[in-house]
Amino acid sequence: MSEDFGPALMARLDEFAAFTDEPGVLTRFYLSPAHRRAADCLIGWMEEAGMTARLDAAGNVVGRYEGAQPGAPALLLGSHIDTIRNAGKYDGNYGVLAALAAVEALHRAGTRLPFAIEIVGFGDEEGVRFPVTMTGSRALAGRLDPAVLKLCDAEGVSIAEALTGFGGDPAALEGCARRPEELLAYVELHIEQGPVLEAAGLPAGIVTAINGASRFEVTLSGQSGHAGTVPMVLRRDAVAAAAEMILAIERLALETPDLVATVGRVSAQPGVVNVVPGGASFTIDLRSPSDAVRDAATGRLTEALGAIGERRRIGVVLRRTHDAAATACAPFLVTQLEAATRRAEVPVQRLPSGAGHDAMVIAALAPVGMLFLRCRDGLSHHPDESITAEDAGLGVRILLDFLRHFRLPGR
Amino acid sequence: MSEDFGPALMARLDEFAAFTDEPGVLTRFYLSPAHRRAADCLIGWMEEAGMTARLDAAGNVVGRYEGAQPGAPALLLGSHIDTIRNAGKYDGNYGVLAALAAVEALHRAGTRLPFAIEIVGFGDEEGVRFPVTMTGSRALAGRLDPAVLKLCDAEGVSIAEALTGFGGDPAALEGCARRPEELLAYVELHIEQGPVLEAAGLPAGIVTAINGASRFEVTLSGQSGHAGTVPMVLRRDAVAAAAEMILAIERLALETPDLVATVGRVSAQPGVVNVVPGGASFTIDLRSPSDAVRDAATGRLTEALGAIGERRRIGVVLRRTHDAAATACAPFLVTQLEAATRRAEVPVQRLPSGAGHDAMVIAALAPVGMLFLRCRDGLSHHPDESITAEDAGLGVRILLDFLRHFRLPGR
Repeated sequence: MSEDFGPALMARLDEFAAFTDEPGVLTRFYLSPAHRRAADCLIGWMEEAGMTARLDAAGNVVGRYEGAQPGAPALLLGSHIDTIRNAGKYDGNYGVLAALAAVEALHRAGTRLPFAIEIVGFGDEEGVRFPVTMTGSRALAGRLDPAVLKLCDAEGVSIAEALTGFGGDPAALEGCARRPEELLAYVELHIEQGPVLEAAGLPAGIVTAINGASRFEVTLSGQSGHAGTVPMVLRRDAVAAAAEMILAIERLALETPDLVATVGRVSAQPGVVNVVPGGASFTIDLRSPSDAVRDAATGRLTEALGAIGERRRIGVVLRRTHDAAATACAPFLVTQLEAATRRAEVPVQRLPSGAGHDAMVIAALAPVGMLFLRCRDGLSHHPDESITAEDAGLGVRILLDFLRHFRLPGR
Repeated sequence: MSEDFGPALMARLDEFAAFTDEPGVLTRFYLSPAHRRAADCLIGWMEEAGMTARLDAAGNVVGRYEGAQPGAPALLLGSHIDTIRNAGKYDGNYGVLAALAAVEALHRAGTRLPFAIEIVGFGDEEGVRFPVTMTGSRALAGRLDPAVLKLCDAEGVSIAEALTGFGGDPAALEGCARRPEELLAYVELHIEQGPVLEAAGLPAGIVTAINGASRFEVTLSGQSGHAGTVPMVLRRDAVAAAAEMILAIERLALETPDLVATVGRVSAQPGVVNVVPGGASFTIDLRSPSDAVRDAATGRLTEALGAIGERRRIGVVLRRTHDAAATACAPFLVTQLEAATRRAEVPVQRLPSGAGHDAMVIAALAPVGMLFLRCRDGLSHHPDESITAEDAGLGVRILLDFLRHFRLPGR
């Protein structure tokens, strides 16, 4: 257990980052030439690690390391190998290659566990090329609507066409779906993409739940007027009302544990320096690991915005544009990941995942768990995304120890 | 004095509104064909009222009604006859045609005053066609930079070319400039373009000063981040900071007599629903009839924004984009307009002008005074701009009475 996996894993992450569709930066869209080269490379590495490996019909790489009994149900590990444009090297890829490093260690030691291990490199999590996300995990979970095959990228190429060119098989997508009895659980390692672990001075943390999210578009209507001629007390200024609402939203999130709220976009109508703005609109993004917390916050927020609008004689329309329930991580996986973390002499930190992950989708098929790795400045989706070799190696050590101790609850 | 000028004046305002460059709406840009037809019509009406009338080199219509002694210095009346696109019928035009109605009454009665009256219909106040405003009054005040002649409209036509086509004379612009000794004062009637008189239940009010104005562009820089992964307490959210600042600006204006402040434009960067906005920018428009009040407010505002930025760890850059001093109306004109208002049995209401007017420019040449007329809902720059015939007539009565009693201070 004292092996240092860090340097080799970092070197491999660098090597893997060379599979890009845009020289000089890392851009690896789903079903692109770079994706195909990365998949082939990954299959080769899996085979060297004693695994059988293949590309599935949806463009996922799936490798299998048999347990003591061939054909046993598998513990599924992995993450995604597609990236956004001008991406960092660790988002997604770290989870796949860290899992591979753990299996390599088992293979080198000649160890067979009481269960098989499968590693999946999902082909599409980011949803950048086509207007759909998590195509890879959806296919594996049997939750991919065949209608998405007709969706096209900016060049007019459909997913079905791209998949055929890639070596996948649009007609066989249903065959990607795994049966629940084949899988014991799904465990994903991922960089945190946030600043919590760094602020706590900890290299890793255990995810309790993937946040549910609600998004709203708020439209305010007051009365436009001349910036010079309308006295302050006669105004129905939609931007001033929006400002008061934005502060109320911030206060609500600051006062509510397990809630974050963001106003990411705001605008004024007509939006002219010398006109009292009669209109304003802004977005709200609400997230919580608890659906009850998020629902209660939605209620309080609706009430607060309505009261501000009424006092200011401003019309308020709140339209929900997105709603996704939280995904709880399975308590037995949280407990076992915590135990492995503790055995690595790392203090245990639980945290919710603010971002979405493949685990959200796989949760429909199997119990899921996630381990987060500290990243510098909480930065992700950016070429400056950074982790240390020490942390990278520690993640593999915790995973390997977790695998060696893994058992289903009640057994 | 009991004559009702309202119905005839309203009919004439309707007739004048037919001079438009866009059928169905009122659009009369500086030096356009409709402007020329309107100018010709106005010259005709002036001549019928016993005036000599002409188009000056800058495209202003100037009519003169001699006093008891020919060649005497003149009291200048007027406003502008250009409009914005899809304008109301009263902005500018009311001031010109109300002055004409007063002179007609003098002419009908055979009255000559101890001074001449001149009425000017300024050709450009709005500044919609060319990127310069108040070309007409600037020319009359001898304050027109000849460089503006090269400025072009959206079709690439320069002011010089348009002026030549209109019947003006770019080479003779300097000749438009009036000498101070030719003019006793300038008095302008104008619709209020704001809701103060209507809210007070008064048909007319006396302007004390035309507001000075400062405009600012505020740029905030914090730290962008993932809307799901960055905890509230670790955020440096530029939009939340902007919201706090916008409320502070509103509060300052509510607490400060003779100050209005407007945030007309606001935006977030990157401006995406699921990203904590690291940047924000907004505009501030500050106006006051007192430059001291406006300067003090600028100081308090700079301090307040800086303090909010510091507390939130947000960079604040405040850039002044516009600055214009207030124009005081001459106290003797205010007093005499008040006396005439009182004699019309209208309670006296003083108010500042929030909008700019030709009087601002003429103030460099002569003492200026303004009388505001109530308009419905404070609406202006809109086809629904509306005044009553009763108020329109009352304005003429007050002006005529003012003219009959006019005397320079100390005489």
